[in-house]
Amino acid sequence: GAAARAWAWLLARVAMVWSTVAGSARKVWRIGADDPRKAVHGLKVGLSLALVSVFYYTRPLYDGVGGAAMWAIMTVVVVFEYTVGGSVYKSFNRAVATASAGVLALGVHWVAGKTGELEPYILTGSLFLLAAAATFSRFIPTVKARFDYGVTIFILTYSLVAVSGYRVDQLAALAQQRVSTIAIGIFMCLAVSVFICPVWAGQELHLLTTRNMDKLADALEACVDDYFAEDPAARPAQAKSDGYKCVLNSKASEDAQANLARWEPAHGRFAFRHPYTQYGKVGAAMRACAYCVEALSSCAGAEVQAPEHVKRLLHDACARVGARCARVLREASRSVATMKSYSALDFAVADMNTAVHELQGDMRSLPSMLAVKLADTSLMDTMPVFTVASLLVEISARVEAVVDSVDALAT
Amino acid sequence: GAAARAWAWLLARVAMVWSTVAGSARKVWRIGADDPRKAVHGLKVGLSLALVSVFYYTRPLYDGVGGAAMWAIMTVVVVFEYTVGGSVYKSFNRAVATASAGVLALGVHWVAGKTGELEPYILTGSLFLLAAAATFSRFIPTVKARFDYGVTIFILTYSLVAVSGYRVDQLAALAQQRVSTIAIGIFMCLAVSVFICPVWAGQELHLLTTRNMDKLADALEACVDDYFAEDPAARPAQAKSDGYKCVLNSKASEDAQANLARWEPAHGRFAFRHPYTQYGKVGAAMRACAYCVEALSSCAGAEVQAPEHVKRLLHDACARVGARCARVLREASRSVATMKSYSALDFAVADMNTAVHELQGDMRSLPSMLAVKLADTSLMDTMPVFTVASLLVEISARVEAVVDSVDALAT
Repeated sequence: GAAARAWAWLLARVAMVWSTVAGSARKVWRIGADDPRKAVHGLKVGLSLALVSVFYYTRPLYDGVGGAAMWAIMTVVVVFEYTVGGSVYKSFNRAVATASAGVLALGVHWVAGKTGELEPYILTGSLFLLAAAATFSRFIPTVKARFDYGVTIFILTYSLVAVSGYRVDQLAALAQQRVSTIAIGIFMCLAVSVFICPVWAGQELHLLTTRNMDKLADALEACVDDYFAEDPAARPAQAKSDGYKCVLNSKASEDAQANLARWEPAHGRFAFRHPYTQYGKVGAAMRACAYCVEALSSCAGAEVQAPEHVKRLLHDACARVGARCARVLREASRSVATMKSYSALDFAVADMNTAVHELQGDMRSLPSMLAVKLADTSLMDTMPVFTVASLLVEISARVEAVVDSVDALAT
Repeated sequence: GAAARAWAWLLARVAMVWSTVAGSARKVWRIGADDPRKAVHGLKVGLSLALVSVFYYTRPLYDGVGGAAMWAIMTVVVVFEYTVGGSVYKSFNRAVATASAGVLALGVHWVAGKTGELEPYILTGSLFLLAAAATFSRFIPTVKARFDYGVTIFILTYSLVAVSGYRVDQLAALAQQRVSTIAIGIFMCLAVSVFICPVWAGQELHLLTTRNMDKLADALEACVDDYFAEDPAARPAQAKSDGYKCVLNSKASEDAQANLARWEPAHGRFAFRHPYTQYGKVGAAMRACAYCVEALSSCAGAEVQAPEHVKRLLHDACARVGARCARVLREASRSVATMKSYSALDFAVADMNTAVHELQGDMRSLPSMLAVKLADTSLMDTMPVFTVASLLVEISARVEAVVDSVDALAT
């Protein structure tokens, strides 16, 4: 009856909610399983906060830094970032901005104190002007890239000190306390982030570049195979030929990581002033290459296709160019990965150029080949294949540009 | 003598420093002059801080909110963003995260208080677990896009309350005070950002899309003209044909603005739940088009070029397709800008398809035209022009995809 229906409805509801929850849980689990360092990062943040709070419970130390221990916790929460570069960037910005804004505010406070009645006007006016100027400075690209967080902290510290009702000597004691707690927070944060499973932005950028280069090589080969595959079932997996899309969309993360990497100390094979900006140029060269691969992959899906027997005429030459371009990219990726220049890379480039010359020769001799072998085929039918071949020639030129940028990185 | 040389050196130094400073100042001035709203934004932040600090100086009000006025200032500094959407996003996250973390921490504090000796262990342990879980949750894409700031504030509030040495009843009073000061800060911030020269993220996204579409149209026309220009001096300005590069690199800012725009209340012609995600699809369609325009522009700079008299055969048909594609893009941009669907857009698409059919006809009849007119030219010489023509056909298909996504936006 009605009770049974209601019960069934309830069961269905519960099952639905359960499957939604289980689905999300599986997704979240995948994020952690794919990159356990993300889960470790969570534990690291928990650990540093627990350390700071233990510090806070220990009486003798507590008496030393006073009630301002709050600032140590705040510092850890806002400064701790996924990469070491991010943590250093925020720590440096926080320390320098707090110190400079504090000193400036104390000075203005002292001057304003001498003027007597005008004090609130001077303080509020200077707050208005400084906040406006500092906020506007965030639109300057260099400031935005390197000191964005520092500007926020500068405004914050200046406002807190400027509007506080304390006398200057009280403020100086407060400032000294504040500086020591922030230093404790920063120290804890950097120690945990550098010594426990560190994630270096420089290394991430490095890995991203080599991984993208390998993906681009795979995608290039897959697209050529895809175009010439006679049997649709024999086509390579879509996932492989879609690899170039990662390259197309990686500009933002490359820029962000290059920005953070510049703050990192020397680590592993990365010196303090490793030429991180050069990775951006390699990335730009790879993207230029990926644009062409995109055009190539759209040829494989185009409506108007050359007949199979015409495709077969250029199949070998095109496949060779595709394979050699991919080999050059893989060698370049190995050169970036190991930070060495190999003669194998030069050989691969020479091989690629030979293959391109052969392809161009085949393209030139196409009309005579057609006249001999396939008299019934119009030359116009060969046009789509010709487009693919000329895209491959353009791609090889862009692959060479990638190699040039990689060489600049290696030296 | 030596004094004169030193003087000259000093003068040169001063002149150098002066020119550097003047150069930077000019750049900064340009940023403000190009978009005065950026300078206005600085003044708005200054104004809200000044208002909050005035509030703080007024005694009767001051007694009401107590020494916690610091939190009002902090809220204004960290919550005020360039766009209204950004400010609402941060305000909402700050308010909800502070309230939920505060309630949770009070509950845990109360439970821990009952256990007596175990209190510090329970508090530190819960802090560790919550901070780790919350930090990890930032890697979930939805949380990252919508609640990133909220997670920071959640951890911060929970730690501050959990490790504080206060009793629960003291904490409740503190919490009530804290909530009222944060509410004042948020109110001030939103009032200034909505009522004084508001910058809406939705509108920015809208403008970015239409501007990019116009740039793409200009670039497409310029690239075709560039390819067929017989006289290098007659080539269009580089700036115009480079417009497609803006389209290629706009994904990050589109995503960011679409994320912020969803927080905005209804304004002007934008309803509360305006389909902002659709702009992302229009942007993706435009980028697909821009990849092909990039390939086209590289044809103009290629080494191997068809002879001028061969180019001339397809010049008219290609220029017509280019111009009609550009017209379709401009009509689509007008349709997005005015949020209406025009029949002119459908006519433009039909015209474009006619032009494409004519071009395909010209491409097919090329061999016979050559046989009649230019018997001394090999068909192979026409191949580069053919590549350009087939790229134009592909571009017209992608322009139609842009129109489809625009139609989905208009309805």
